[in-house]
Amino acid sequence: MTTITATPIPGLPEVRPGDDLAGLLLSAAPDLRDGDVLCLAHKVVSKAEGRVVDLRDIEPGDTARELAASHGKDPRHLEVVLSEAAAIVRERPGVLICRTRHGFVCANAGVDASNAGADDRVVLLPLDPDASARALRRALRARAGVAPAVVVTDSFGRAWRRGQCETAIGVAGLTLVDDWHGRADADGRSLRATAIAIADEAAAAADLARAKDSREPAVVLRGLERHVSADDGPGAVALVRPAAEDLFI
Amino acid sequence: MTTITATPIPGLPEVRPGDDLAGLLLSAAPDLRDGDVLCLAHKVVSKAEGRVVDLRDIEPGDTARELAASHGKDPRHLEVVLSEAAAIVRERPGVLICRTRHGFVCANAGVDASNAGADDRVVLLPLDPDASARALRRALRARAGVAPAVVVTDSFGRAWRRGQCETAIGVAGLTLVDDWHGRADADGRSLRATAIAIADEAAAAADLARAKDSREPAVVLRGLERHVSADDGPGAVALVRPAAEDLFI
Repeated sequence: MTTITATPIPGLPEVRPGDDLAGLLLSAAPDLRDGDVLCLAHKVVSKAEGRVVDLRDIEPGDTARELAASHGKDPRHLEVVLSEAAAIVRERPGVLICRTRHGFVCANAGVDASNAGADDRVVLLPLDPDASARALRRALRARAGVAPAVVVTDSFGRAWRRGQCETAIGVAGLTLVDDWHGRADADGRSLRATAIAIADEAAAAADLARAKDSREPAVVLRGLERHVSADDGPGAVALVRPAAEDLFI
Repeated sequence: MTTITATPIPGLPEVRPGDDLAGLLLSAAPDLRDGDVLCLAHKVVSKAEGRVVDLRDIEPGDTARELAASHGKDPRHLEVVLSEAAAIVRERPGVLICRTRHGFVCANAGVDASNAGADDRVVLLPLDPDASARALRRALRARAGVAPAVVVTDSFGRAWRRGQCETAIGVAGLTLVDDWHGRADADGRSLRATAIAIADEAAAAADLARAKDSREPAVVLRGLERHVSADDGPGAVALVRPAAEDLFI
């Protein structure tokens, strides 16, 4: 029997472009250790990486202006969304479901104005959230000799269900899917189609520990040691269902 | 700052039709208390409620036989799936995504052969998982004077992403969606579209604490007291996105 704990890292300052995220995290959480899973809301990663756009610098094109008119949104915001989207999956007034360049399907291609830090700024997803997770893990290992798994997360809506669940968009060192295909269940029978999305469930568990209105972008999960590996693994892009298998594009 | 813990309830026996689930749970977890969230894999609820079908009693019809031929599956199993499905949402060889009578979208309308307890038996979803959750909560309150929130869960696949996440299909006494619409974020700005699917994130967190091959269908979450109410609330059916708003049916 394992107890899992999810504990926010308190006292992180507001993160700005160029900030040393590994240093900030190690100062705020000196007890980080191997086997931990460090979950980070992507916004702190995006901000540290400078993935923030000032809308006053954006000149919307015709498509963004047309979409803005039908969606009742800021055309500059939509210009940024279009620049981040590989494809628009569904569109209707007020809702723009996009596939990002990484392959993730989410509203507005992950471009978000909340918690951006100023009224005219929007935060984008990291260019390569898996690379962000790996770089942060490498920095923690180099500076403090600890290599927790790192999961970069965002809150995504879902088909068919209301509300958003926190979801893994960048992963280093954590099992993505625990595949029980062919293994036996408690009755000794074959489990035919159980493939547990560990990284996404970890993102969700971390989110429960966090209040959206507080500055707690980082949460440490303990008790998942069996899913943490020294190897970084293929990253969250491997969670994207290939188009040929996807019935809902 | 809140730490969330997820701890499996150890030592639950195999559950059979007619078993007293509240009694079994109270014996195995005498320290259950108000403010806890008790998450239960639906199979123990379904078994206690007799929602188990012996395939030897099933005579498949023509549609089930045709589907079985194209899917390479047992026609009796597909007959049960069809009887549980309100609609087939997507179909292709080996994959049958259904809308259940409750409104949930999942593979095989939730009919599952793993952990069923015998080779020819399949387990169905509870007839009304919200009623199951409310009844269990009522029994716990009556017998032991404690009213933890109760969440009945199943592992559902997702559009666009690989793997399955544990999902709330029956809820009593837990926030379904924590809606921050109109509330201010840490910068004092309005958060426009953040509605956190607390019950689903709780189901996911509970699943992380459980090994699929062990008899740990019940997991207790602590630290979510702010989301637990004396009132049972509208239940997980309220999480189903109405057809008029659903872009992926």
